[in-house]
Amino acid sequence: MNNIPEKKIERLSLYRRRLMSESGSRSYIFSHELAGLTNSNAAQVRRDLMMIGYEGTPKKGYKVELLIKYIGVFLDPVEKQNVVIVGAGNLGHALLTFFKNRQPKLCLVAAFDIDPVKIGKDIGGTICHDLADLPRIIKEKNVKIGVISSTENAAAEIADIMINAGIKSIINFTCFPLSAPKGVFIEQIDITASFEKAAFFSKE
Amino acid sequence: MNNIPEKKIERLSLYRRRLMSESGSRSYIFSHELAGLTNSNAAQVRRDLMMIGYEGTPKKGYKVELLIKYIGVFLDPVEKQNVVIVGAGNLGHALLTFFKNRQPKLCLVAAFDIDPVKIGKDIGGTICHDLADLPRIIKEKNVKIGVISSTENAAAEIADIMINAGIKSIINFTCFPLSAPKGVFIEQIDITASFEKAAFFSKE
Repeated sequence: MNNIPEKKIERLSLYRRRLMSESGSRSYIFSHELAGLTNSNAAQVRRDLMMIGYEGTPKKGYKVELLIKYIGVFLDPVEKQNVVIVGAGNLGHALLTFFKNRQPKLCLVAAFDIDPVKIGKDIGGTICHDLADLPRIIKEKNVKIGVISSTENAAAEIADIMINAGIKSIINFTCFPLSAPKGVFIEQIDITASFEKAAFFSKE
Repeated sequence: MNNIPEKKIERLSLYRRRLMSESGSRSYIFSHELAGLTNSNAAQVRRDLMMIGYEGTPKKGYKVELLIKYIGVFLDPVEKQNVVIVGAGNLGHALLTFFKNRQPKLCLVAAFDIDPVKIGKDIGGTICHDLADLPRIIKEKNVKIGVISSTENAAAEIADIMINAGIKSIINFTCFPLSAPKGVFIEQIDITASFEKAAFFSKE
């Protein structure tokens, strides 16, 4: 899967969500219409969709319901994927509740923290464990996806533990720039940088 | 401010946070060291810091505390900037609590929703108002930064209201691809796409 560009996966994810919004109001869609809904262009849309093996007809375009299914077959894990999240502070808590019931193929199986007050508690429907149990639980539950919402100083160590225990994808919400070995996918989401950019560009 | 590349602002934001982590343990830092802490390279670091008007010495490098200050003068608003957030669901709620006390120069002044159950309530320390009051409050409080954490279908309309009322920067947490008029900064943070990418690249 690693030779497929990240941007393509991002676009497919976006196509699907825009298609889901549209599915109530139309049965077919043309590539230029889908492009309009996603700030893309028709040629790009056609190339992306050709890759997943579904071609529309020149006359009617793509069948919306079918296209949603094809994208799902391509993007989604075949079986539910287990996810862990390390760092059960405000953002961690938010992510735990935000993703509950939103991602049918992703299952948050455990949260982790080092704060004794949080350990053993139910946080947004997920039990918070001691960070020391992270490698064991990753292996036991065959977890492939890890979310880091700890302090930035802990991020590198947590990522190492995750990768050594078998995690293949990390979503890093700290500003610490993780570098990953080959075969591990890292996604950085630096919300603080986004707010600082917004503040900068709002200056007159 | 609009001719300064976004990536440069992102890097400065990252430099500052990494410098703040380091400030307890060292007084000076060389460009190659700061580059190492931020997955950058020394030439890039020097170019970025030259722009903000602070040059280190070849012998000792940059003074950490001074560099943090210089970056702040360049990046931060002179006075507190007011921020509003529209959509007080799980993510909105999370953002409200997450940013409390984290951004000394940003002040969350109001949240908005259309859900009568939420309107008038205190959510993470911020009062939730009726969406109908958005333009009035933006103008009254001279708000320049807006956060959208609504449903994707409402995003375009909310962005229009924000921009018409005077907002200059929007952070959009929905997947709806907003396009902005000249002079308005839009930052897209599509958390769902990040999770879908993580799931895809974790497939074996």
